Amino acid sequence: MLHRKSLLVLCILLISQFALAEDGYRLWLRYDKISNASLLGKYRQQLAVPVITGNSATITAAKDELKNGITGLLNINSGILNSYTSKATFIAGTLATISNQYKLPVEKNALLGLGDEGFTITTKDQKIFIIANTDIGVLYGIFHFLRLLQTQQDITALHISTSPKIKYRLLNHWDNLNRTVERGYAGASIWDWHKLPDYIDKRYIDYARANASVGINGTVLTNVNANATILTPQYLDKVAALANVFRPYGIKVFLTARFSAPIEIGGLKTADPLNDTVRQWWKDKVKEIYKLIPDFGGFLVKANSEGQPGPQDYHRTHADGANMFADALQPFKGIVMWRAFVYSQLSNDRFKQAYEEFKPLDGQFKSNVILQVKNGPIDFQPREPFSPLFGAMPHTPLAMEFQLTQEYLGQGTHLVYEAPMFKETLESDTYEKGKGSTVAKVIDGSINNFSLTAIAGVSNIGSDINWCSHPFAQANWYALGRLAWDHTLSSEQIAKEWLQQTFSNDPAFVNIAQKIMLQSHEAMVNYMTPVGLAHIMYNGHHYGPMPWGNTLPRPDWNPVYYHKADAAGIGFNRTATGTDALSEYKQDVSSLWSDSNTCADKYLLWFHHVSWNHTMHSGRSLWNELCYKYNAGVDTVKYMQQQWNGLQKYVDAERFTEVKQLLNIQVKEATWWRNACLLYFQTFSKLPIPANYEQPDKTLEYYQSLRFPYAPGN
Amino acid sequence: MLHRKSLLVLCILLISQFALAEDGYRLWLRYDKISNASLLGKYRQQLAVPVITGNSATITAAKDELKNGITGLLNINSGILNSYTSKATFIAGTLATISNQYKLPVEKNALLGLGDEGFTITTKDQKIFIIANTDIGVLYGIFHFLRLLQTQQDITALHISTSPKIKYRLLNHWDNLNRTVERGYAGASIWDWHKLPDYIDKRYIDYARANASVGINGTVLTNVNANATILTPQYLDKVAALANVFRPYGIKVFLTARFSAPIEIGGLKTADPLNDTVRQWWKDKVKEIYKLIPDFGGFLVKANSEGQPGPQDYHRTHADGANMFADALQPFKGIVMWRAFVYSQLSNDRFKQAYEEFKPLDGQFKSNVILQVKNGPIDFQPREPFSPLFGAMPHTPLAMEFQLTQEYLGQGTHLVYEAPMFKETLESDTYEKGKGSTVAKVIDGSINNFSLTAIAGVSNIGSDINWCSHPFAQANWYALGRLAWDHTLSSEQIAKEWLQQTFSNDPAFVNIAQKIMLQSHEAMVNYMTPVGLAHIMYNGHHYGPMPWGNTLPRPDWNPVYYHKADAAGIGFNRTATGTDALSEYKQDVSSLWSDSNTCADKYLLWFHHVSWNHTMHSGRSLWNELCYKYNAGVDTVKYMQQQWNGLQKYVDAERFTEVKQLLNIQVKEATWWRNACLLYFQTFSKLPIPANYEQPDKTLEYYQSLRFPYAPGN
Repeated sequence: MLHRKSLLVLCILLISQFALAEDGYRLWLRYDKISNASLLGKYRQQLAVPVITGNSATITAAKDELKNGITGLLNINSGILNSYTSKATFIAGTLATISNQYKLPVEKNALLGLGDEGFTITTKDQKIFIIANTDIGVLYGIFHFLRLLQTQQDITALHISTSPKIKYRLLNHWDNLNRTVERGYAGASIWDWHKLPDYIDKRYIDYARANASVGINGTVLTNVNANATILTPQYLDKVAALANVFRPYGIKVFLTARFSAPIEIGGLKTADPLNDTVRQWWKDKVKEIYKLIPDFGGFLVKANSEGQPGPQDYHRTHADGANMFADALQPFKGIVMWRAFVYSQLSNDRFKQAYEEFKPLDGQFKSNVILQVKNGPIDFQPREPFSPLFGAMPHTPLAMEFQLTQEYLGQGTHLVYEAPMFKETLESDTYEKGKGSTVAKVIDGSINNFSLTAIAGVSNIGSDINWCSHPFAQANWYALGRLAWDHTLSSEQIAKEWLQQTFSNDPAFVNIAQKIMLQSHEAMVNYMTPVGLAHIMYNGHHYGPMPWGNTLPRPDWNPVYYHKADAAGIGFNRTATGTDALSEYKQDVSSLWSDSNTCADKYLLWFHHVSWNHTMHSGRSLWNELCYKYNAGVDTVKYMQQQWNGLQKYVDAERFTEVKQLLNIQVKEATWWRNACLLYFQTFSKLPIPANYEQPDKTLEYYQSLRFPYAPGN
Repeated sequence: MLHRKSLLVLCILLISQFALAEDGYRLWLRYDKISNASLLGKYRQQLAVPVITGNSATITAAKDELKNGITGLLNINSGILNSYTSKATFIAGTLATISNQYKLPVEKNALLGLGDEGFTITTKDQKIFIIANTDIGVLYGIFHFLRLLQTQQDITALHISTSPKIKYRLLNHWDNLNRTVERGYAGASIWDWHKLPDYIDKRYIDYARANASVGINGTVLTNVNANATILTPQYLDKVAALANVFRPYGIKVFLTARFSAPIEIGGLKTADPLNDTVRQWWKDKVKEIYKLIPDFGGFLVKANSEGQPGPQDYHRTHADGANMFADALQPFKGIVMWRAFVYSQLSNDRFKQAYEEFKPLDGQFKSNVILQVKNGPIDFQPREPFSPLFGAMPHTPLAMEFQLTQEYLGQGTHLVYEAPMFKETLESDTYEKGKGSTVAKVIDGSINNFSLTAIAGVSNIGSDINWCSHPFAQANWYALGRLAWDHTLSSEQIAKEWLQQTFSNDPAFVNIAQKIMLQSHEAMVNYMTPVGLAHIMYNGHHYGPMPWGNTLPRPDWNPVYYHKADAAGIGFNRTATGTDALSEYKQDVSSLWSDSNTCADKYLLWFHHVSWNHTMHSGRSLWNELCYKYNAGVDTVKYMQQQWNGLQKYVDAERFTEVKQLLNIQVKEATWWRNACLLYFQTFSKLPIPANYEQPDKTLEYYQSLRFPYAPGN
C-alpha cells in the first residue's frame, strides 16, 4: 500500500506529465480538472447522479461526451444512468423520453418552439434538466453544459433556451483527393481517402465532436475546384464511411459537384444543364448517393469561375445550372449551394461582377437553391465592405461564405482572430428593407422570410497535430460555429469562452489573451492593407506583399489593378465618376460611401482615388495616415508579442513556445509588409516617411527580389 | 487535504486519462510507469541519487532525457546532480569528467577502445556507471540504460560495453520542399520549410531524441530526386536551424546535391564535373554551407538515374562526378554518398546495370566517397537476393541502402516487420574473401578494412501523429537504428525490445505480438511475390498487383519484363543461357544459384525460367507451389489478425483499433494480391487452382479494371 505522501507525489507527477502532452489536439474540449475546490465540490454534487434518457447513436455520443467531460473536469466516475430515478441530480433527454418519466420543468409549447436543434437547460428542484425535441438537441445541450463547466459558470439556477438562427452551419473543405489542401496551411488534408472506407481515423470522430460542440451541422468534404472522381462508386463508398462517423453528431456530408462530371465520369458528350440525358445522369447519380447516404446534404458548386466548367459553357445561365441539381436533389430534400464567386467574363470592375451576374437571376432559382456569397465583393481580403449582393436579392436565399483559412490574412503563422471581421460584415446595414437590415438579418432569413439559411466557413483544418497550425487559429473554427448558431454573440464573449476552454480560466491570463485576440485583426489590416487597400499580396500563393505586381495576363489578378497608385494619389474610384460599383448598394449605403468625406476611412481606398495629401478624419494627410497605420500595425503586433511573453506562467510550455515563435515571425512579417508597401507607394507619393517612425532597413529592390516558390497552400 | 481514498481514485483517473492519449506520438520512448512493484522499488533505489557530469548541450540533453525517463518510469522526482557525491547511486559522464571525480570502475584502455560513440555501463560498489569518451557516448549510454528500464531488465550487476559497428547510421528522407514525400505514406513531410528557420516544431526535437535513442547519427533531409533550391542561402538558413536542433543529439545533417545546381542556381552554363568554374562553384557552395553548419555531413547524390542529371550528361564517369564533390567536401571532412541505383542506359537486364556501371570504377573514387547500394539489384522488392555489387568492390567503401518506407511492401497499411529482410541481406555470404564474407562484413568495413562505413534507411516518417502511419511501422525505423549500431542483433531481440517499450512488457502480449511481427515479412512475400517473383506491382504508385502491366515505354518498367510468364513457364533466366547476370556474383554464389535444383526456392524465379510443372524442393509443382504460397500468405495474415484480436486486453483502445482496422485492410489486400496474380498466371499455366484453396471470387477482368489515381506517395 502506498503512503499518502507518495500518492500525492505520484498524482502531482502524473498531472505534470499529463500537462506535458499539451499538443493542441484536444482543441477546446480539454476537460482538464477544475482546480477551484469550492466550484469543484458544487459541480460534483450537481453531477452526482446523472441521467441521459433515450437510445440512439446520438444519445450514446451524448453519454460518452458527458462521461468524458465529468471524468476529466470533475475527476468523478459517475455512471450515466439510462432512466429517471428520484436521486437524479442531472437529467437530459428529449421531450418524449423525459416526459414519460418526469413532470416537465418547462412549458411544453416553449420546448416545441425550440425546433429540431434547440434545447433548454433548466434548474428545477435542485436538479438540472437538459431537454430538446430531438436527440441532436440533447447532444448540443450536453456540449453547452460542458462549456458552462469548462468556463466555470455558476450552475445553481440555469434558465437557458437556445436554438440556432441559421439552419445550415457548415465547413467548406478545399481539400483535394491527393490530400493537398488549396489554401491550407495546417498540413495535409485530414481526409485520408486512400485508407477509407476501411480505416476510420480517430481524428474523424474528434472532428465530429468538435463541430457538434459548436453546432456545426454540415461539412463539404471536397474542394470547390472540384474533381468528378469523388462521385464515382469507389469514392462514394469512402464518403459514406465518413457520413456514418458524422451522423451521430448531427453532421451531414455535402460534396462539391464538378459541372462536367457527366462527361468525365459519365461518358456523355455534354454537360448542358438543359439536356435530358445530362439531367437524368445527375438524377441517377443523386439517387445512387442517397442509397449510400440517406441524409446526404447536397452539392456545393463553383461554376464558370477561375476555369471551372459551368452552365455558361452551354450558353445557359447560373440558374439553369443550379436548378438542374436542385431538381435532382429535391426528392431527397437535398440542397444546392451555388457559389456567387464568379468572374469569368471581364467587367470593368471585378467588384461588380457577382452582382452583375446574379442580380438579374433573382427569383429564378428553385426553392432548394441557396446562393453562397463571400463576405466581400473581391476575395477574403483583410477588410472588405460587405458584398453588394447582400441586400439585393429579395427572392433568393443567400448564404454567407467566410474564410477561416487565412489565405490573405497571414496564412499559417499570424495570430488573427477573425470574429471581429465576421461581425463587421454581419452587422453592416444593407438598408434592404430600411435601416437595420443588417447582413445578419439577410442571411438568417428574417428580412425576406427564408427558412433555407446557411453560413459556411472555408476550413482552416489540416493534419497538423493541433489541427489548425497556429494554436490561436482554432479560435476561428470555434467562432464560426458559435456565430452561425447565434450571430448576436459578441467577439469578446467568444474569445473569452474559447480561451477559458482552450488555455486557462485564470482571469489574469484570459484578460490579456483576450485583448491580444481582439486587437489582432485590426493590427493585421493595418500592417497589410490599411485605409481600404486590398489584394496587394504576392501572385499565386498570396504570401507576403507585392503591391508592385503587374505581370499577370488578367488585369484583375494584378495588385496594381486594386490600388491604382500614381503620382496624383491612390485608390480605386468606384463612384459614379469611376466604375460606379457603389450603385450596386442601396442608396443609403452608396451615398454615404460615395463621398470621400463621409466614407469611413477604413473603406476609403476601396471607393476613392484620392490625393496623397487628402485629409483623413484623423486630420493626417493620406500619406501620413498610411505611414501611421502601417506603423501602428507593426507596433500592435510587437505589443501582442510582449503581452504574450508575460503570460508564460499561465500556459503550458509547448503552446507558450509555439505562440511565442509564431509571434516572432508575425513581427518580422508585419515589418516586411510595412517596409515593402511604404517604400513602394513612396515611389508615387515622393513623400518622406515621417522621422518619428522606424525607417525601412532594406531597399525596395530587396523586397521585390524575394521569391517563395514553395509557399504552402498554392 | 484530500483523503487517501480520493487520492487513489484521482490517481487512477489520471492514469486512465493519460493512457487514453495513446496516439503513438511518443514512439518507443513512452516512459510509462513500471507496474511491477518490486522492480520499481529496486530501480528507485538505484536511481535515488543520479549524477551526470559534464557541461554541454549534449550533456543537458542526457540530463533531460534521464529526468524525463525516471519521472515517467519510476515516478520519482530525483534532481540530476552535476558532480560526484559519495551518496551517488548512478554516475554518468565522459572519461575525462568522471576520472576527475572518481576512481574509474573499468580499465581506461578498454574505455578508450570504445571510440567516439561507444560507452560502458558498469556496476561497481552498487553504483551504476555510464562512461564514454565523448558527450554523445554518454547520451547513447543514457538511452541504452533507459531501454534497460523500459524493458524491465535486471540492473543489479551490469557489465555492458558497446560501440557502433558502422560509422554513419543514417535516415534518408525522400522529402520535397513542397512537403510532399516521394513514397511517403505517413502524411506530409515533417520538415515545415516554410516556417523554418524561425519556427522550431517540437517534433524536430522528438525526432532527434528518437534517432539518438537507437544510435542514428545522420539525416539526409531532402529527396534524392533533388531540388537545387535547398542549396540557396534562403534554404540553407533553414537547414542550419534544423542542424542546430539535431547537434546536441549527435545527428549530422546531410543534403542531396542536384548535379545541375551550378546551372539552376549558379547561373553557369554547364555542370561538367571537370570544368574548373563548376568545381569552384561547388567549393564555394560547400564553404558557404560549412560556415552555417560547421558539422555538415556531406552530400547524397543520385545522378544519371531516372531522369536526374549527372556526370554522364558531360561524358564523364560517376567517379568524375563523385570526386568533384569529394574534393569540395574534403577540407571540411564531409563525405559523398554516391548512389549506385542507376539504370539510365539500357542493359539487357536491369539486374546487371549497377554492377556494369560501377565495377569498372572500383578504386577510382576519392577516400571520402562511399557508394550507396540498395540491398538488392532491382528496387526494394519484397524479397531480393543481395546486390552483386556487395563483394565486387574491394577498393570502394559500400554503404547499405534499405528502404524503411514500404513502397513495394504494402505501403501505409500492411504490418511488415522488416528486420528479418534486412538480416537476410546482411547475413548473405558474398564469398568476397572466401566463405563467411557476409554482406554485413562488407559494409562494416571489416572485409576490406574501410573505416568509412554507412547504413542508410529510406525514411518512413511523416507528419502523421504517430509518425509512420502504421503503429508497427515504427518498428522498422527502430530496427534500422539498432542494426546499424550492431548488425549481429537478432530480429527476435529487436522486435521484443521494441514491443516492450512501445506497447507492454507483459509476456502474454510480447510473445504473441513478436510472433506476428516475425512472420509478417514472409507472409507479405508469399501473398505478393512468392518463389522469387518481383516488381509485379501497379505502375507508378506501386499500390496493388498488376502482373499484366505491359504498357510503359521502357521494358524494365513493366511487370511482364520481370516475370516473363508464358505457356512454357515463368521466371527470368539470368543463368549463362539467359542474361548471365549470375556471373556478377562470386563463383560460390553463382554456381549455387545457377542450377535450378540447388537454387533456393525463394530465389528461383529471380534466376530461372522454369516450367509450370517444375518440381520444387517441397515436392509440389511450380504452379501448385505458387498456389500454395499465395494462399499461405493470405492465411498467415488472417492468423495475424486473429492473434491480434486476442490481444485487446493488453493494448490501449486507440492503437488496438488502429492495428485491427489495418489488419482488416491487409487481409483484403492480400486476398486481392493472391486472386489477381493467380488468375493472371493461370492464363499461361492453364492449370486449375487446387480445390482445397479458396477460389477467387472475382474475375481477372475485375482486378484489371481497378484504378487508383490518387494512391499516395507517387
